[in-house]
Amino acid sequence: MEYRQRFAGPRGRDGALGYPVRVADWLRMTPEELDALDPLVAARADFMVDESVVYMDGNSLGRLPKATVRRTGAEVEEMWGRRLVRGWNEGWYELPVEVGDQIGELIGATPGETLCCDSTTVNLYKIVSALGALAKGGPIVAEGRAFPSDLYALQSCASACGRQIQYIEPGPHGWTQTGAVVDAIQDGAAIVVLSHVDFRTGRLLPMNELTAAAHSAGCLIIWDLSHSVGAVPSRVSEWGVDAAVGCTYKYLNGGPGSPAFLYVNARHLEKVQCPLFGWLGSRDPFAFEPTYEPASGVRKFLVGTPPIISMTAVEEGVRLVARYGLSAIREKSERLGDLFIHLARRELVPRGMSLRSPEQSADRGSHVSLAHPDAYRICRALIEEESVIPDFRTPDMIRYGLSPLYTSYCEVQRAVEATARVIDSRVFEKFERDFAAVT
Amino acid sequence: MEYRQRFAGPRGRDGALGYPVRVADWLRMTPEELDALDPLVAARADFMVDESVVYMDGNSLGRLPKATVRRTGAEVEEMWGRRLVRGWNEGWYELPVEVGDQIGELIGATPGETLCCDSTTVNLYKIVSALGALAKGGPIVAEGRAFPSDLYALQSCASACGRQIQYIEPGPHGWTQTGAVVDAIQDGAAIVVLSHVDFRTGRLLPMNELTAAAHSAGCLIIWDLSHSVGAVPSRVSEWGVDAAVGCTYKYLNGGPGSPAFLYVNARHLEKVQCPLFGWLGSRDPFAFEPTYEPASGVRKFLVGTPPIISMTAVEEGVRLVARYGLSAIREKSERLGDLFIHLARRELVPRGMSLRSPEQSADRGSHVSLAHPDAYRICRALIEEESVIPDFRTPDMIRYGLSPLYTSYCEVQRAVEATARVIDSRVFEKFERDFAAVT
Repeated sequence: MEYRQRFAGPRGRDGALGYPVRVADWLRMTPEELDALDPLVAARADFMVDESVVYMDGNSLGRLPKATVRRTGAEVEEMWGRRLVRGWNEGWYELPVEVGDQIGELIGATPGETLCCDSTTVNLYKIVSALGALAKGGPIVAEGRAFPSDLYALQSCASACGRQIQYIEPGPHGWTQTGAVVDAIQDGAAIVVLSHVDFRTGRLLPMNELTAAAHSAGCLIIWDLSHSVGAVPSRVSEWGVDAAVGCTYKYLNGGPGSPAFLYVNARHLEKVQCPLFGWLGSRDPFAFEPTYEPASGVRKFLVGTPPIISMTAVEEGVRLVARYGLSAIREKSERLGDLFIHLARRELVPRGMSLRSPEQSADRGSHVSLAHPDAYRICRALIEEESVIPDFRTPDMIRYGLSPLYTSYCEVQRAVEATARVIDSRVFEKFERDFAAVT
Repeated sequence: MEYRQRFAGPRGRDGALGYPVRVADWLRMTPEELDALDPLVAARADFMVDESVVYMDGNSLGRLPKATVRRTGAEVEEMWGRRLVRGWNEGWYELPVEVGDQIGELIGATPGETLCCDSTTVNLYKIVSALGALAKGGPIVAEGRAFPSDLYALQSCASACGRQIQYIEPGPHGWTQTGAVVDAIQDGAAIVVLSHVDFRTGRLLPMNELTAAAHSAGCLIIWDLSHSVGAVPSRVSEWGVDAAVGCTYKYLNGGPGSPAFLYVNARHLEKVQCPLFGWLGSRDPFAFEPTYEPASGVRKFLVGTPPIISMTAVEEGVRLVARYGLSAIREKSERLGDLFIHLARRELVPRGMSLRSPEQSADRGSHVSLAHPDAYRICRALIEEESVIPDFRTPDMIRYGLSPLYTSYCEVQRAVEATARVIDSRVFEKFERDFAAVT
């Protein structure tokens, strides 16, 4: 319940942000009525939207903000094209730190704790290695069903850290249970690495509570915010989170493969070392000293030269989230999810689908997952036959992403109805069972 | 002499590529006459060029190709904007491998040995760690005045490899001498890491000869091609180079901070492991297996999700180099450098500048460096007062980059004349001695 209490008032009270209806009445309204009451309805116009498509995959790749078209165009034509190498002194050089701080604001970091750089996986490798030198003896604890690239990052640095990895197996619903994390912490975990929102089920773990549990046992905690940043608020500095990483191309709408971010709590910054030494993380890159000396502060976690064009797109995406605010975004995210689940229970569960996400919005990020034995082909048919775009996760799950800045209540309804049609018509049977390269 | 012999015929013979004058006569022609005879003169129109600026820093950040404006615009608006997440199955997913192979063609790699990914520094960390497991006992040998980020990468992985780093000190001209490399190899180097072209002086090392020397002593060799790729041909596969890395934003014109590349010789690929495990380097990323198993081939060196918009710019830059061909590019590069040095000897050495680059074009990459006690302020004055843009390298060096696809012989003359004017007028004295953040 922590998010709802903190950001939107307790369930059953009027919404905190101007929805003029009680939640109890709200699911009886039509999606059109809900859209008409949506305080974020104007945000959709800030994105390039082809109305013939119902896009339900903002949890994988967020939509394109219109401002990003202008910004990347200007960055290419005006900055690179005309300012040329001078661009480095006219904004580019500080971009990883400045965009980092803008992301930091969305996760509740203090300025100077966050960088935009590299990929989520490389960043996790860096911070686990760095914190490994500070942690007490004991294993690294991770979720057995965490996003695999996170697990791979841990697997590649565990031996260098001289540590074992201990996996928390999921509970009966398929997600990590809070109690199991607390048990692992109390059993001697040195570092625990958790996803704020689970990539499969959308399960939201209580960051504040688990961070406190870790610290009370002398354990360090690292959060992967990839599936929450831009959709679910957090307060990493206030809660004392040791470090975090995350992705910018989902709810931050930074574009395909846009550079990721990392956060390291200020109290650790002067004590840790980045395991990858690179010139932009060194004390004075343009002194060209032959021996690495780290920069002070979070900048030491920079390595090589960052991909500027992709990073300027991140800045535009982050600004858009900041402009509308995470309180409004989180409230709408919960309501979109509640509506989706309400409609799915009525239309899709009777057709053989089962809910794989938490029922309660306080326990859920911003996507909802449904399972079906023919999920892959249903997903293909939704995309090809219905122009409804969710995604598939092996072996049997369809994820419907709800991105509050552009997903409408009507789209939730259209997605559910289209799924019902695909199942009823069995049109999915004409698609191959073989998976595409990217699902 | 190897490059000249291979690609442009011996000095004193007519040029191989249609210059209708003997080299002996050539320096007596005017720059206008040389431009009129330039077989690459049309290539300049493929770049965005503001004729009021003389851009001599393509060795740091190459110019913007016009095709890149169209491509990045289309990639943002059409692919991301309209195809959305479907873009991953419509080209993005294979981009690191496809762009890698296109770069591979320019360095003489066999298809399947090259990837476009991450930064040069991260890539060097990966391949030194990977080859470290194959190398005999002994130190890693590096150039004491290599690009510092390369040295930092070695410093961060040497201890994990259980190896010392041994530095080759430069000879009297400020660059690494071939004999010193051979000595270090014969003294028991396990891995030698060299820059094909030195970032300060432009010194070009004989890759074929030194690779053979390394192999005859059972030593592995890694080349940093950052300052040669796109300007100086190489034949990494034919010469048996063990691995290489390089940058795409210099002579490949990939844009600010564009993703780098790595090459690993096919004979090593199945034996080595990438030290950074990530999902795109795993056997089947969309199987979401909890335990890392590497992909086969060079793909195992991928880690996280790559920055697609920046990478599409690399592809356009690489295509342009491939279209005009490295033989023509290398020949013009040598002639531009010869003209620059000829004019600098006449105009700038008498004004107190000294040549810091090899005199012979066969020993030189595609930039020429001059030293002066007031180099920083002269460089600032060139940029601010003369719209001539070279760059400065501490403590006393100005680098003039010669990028054959767009640098003209007239620009070489204008750059030399502007430098002479700045020294004569002492206009540089009005600039601060304090360095900008990026020089």
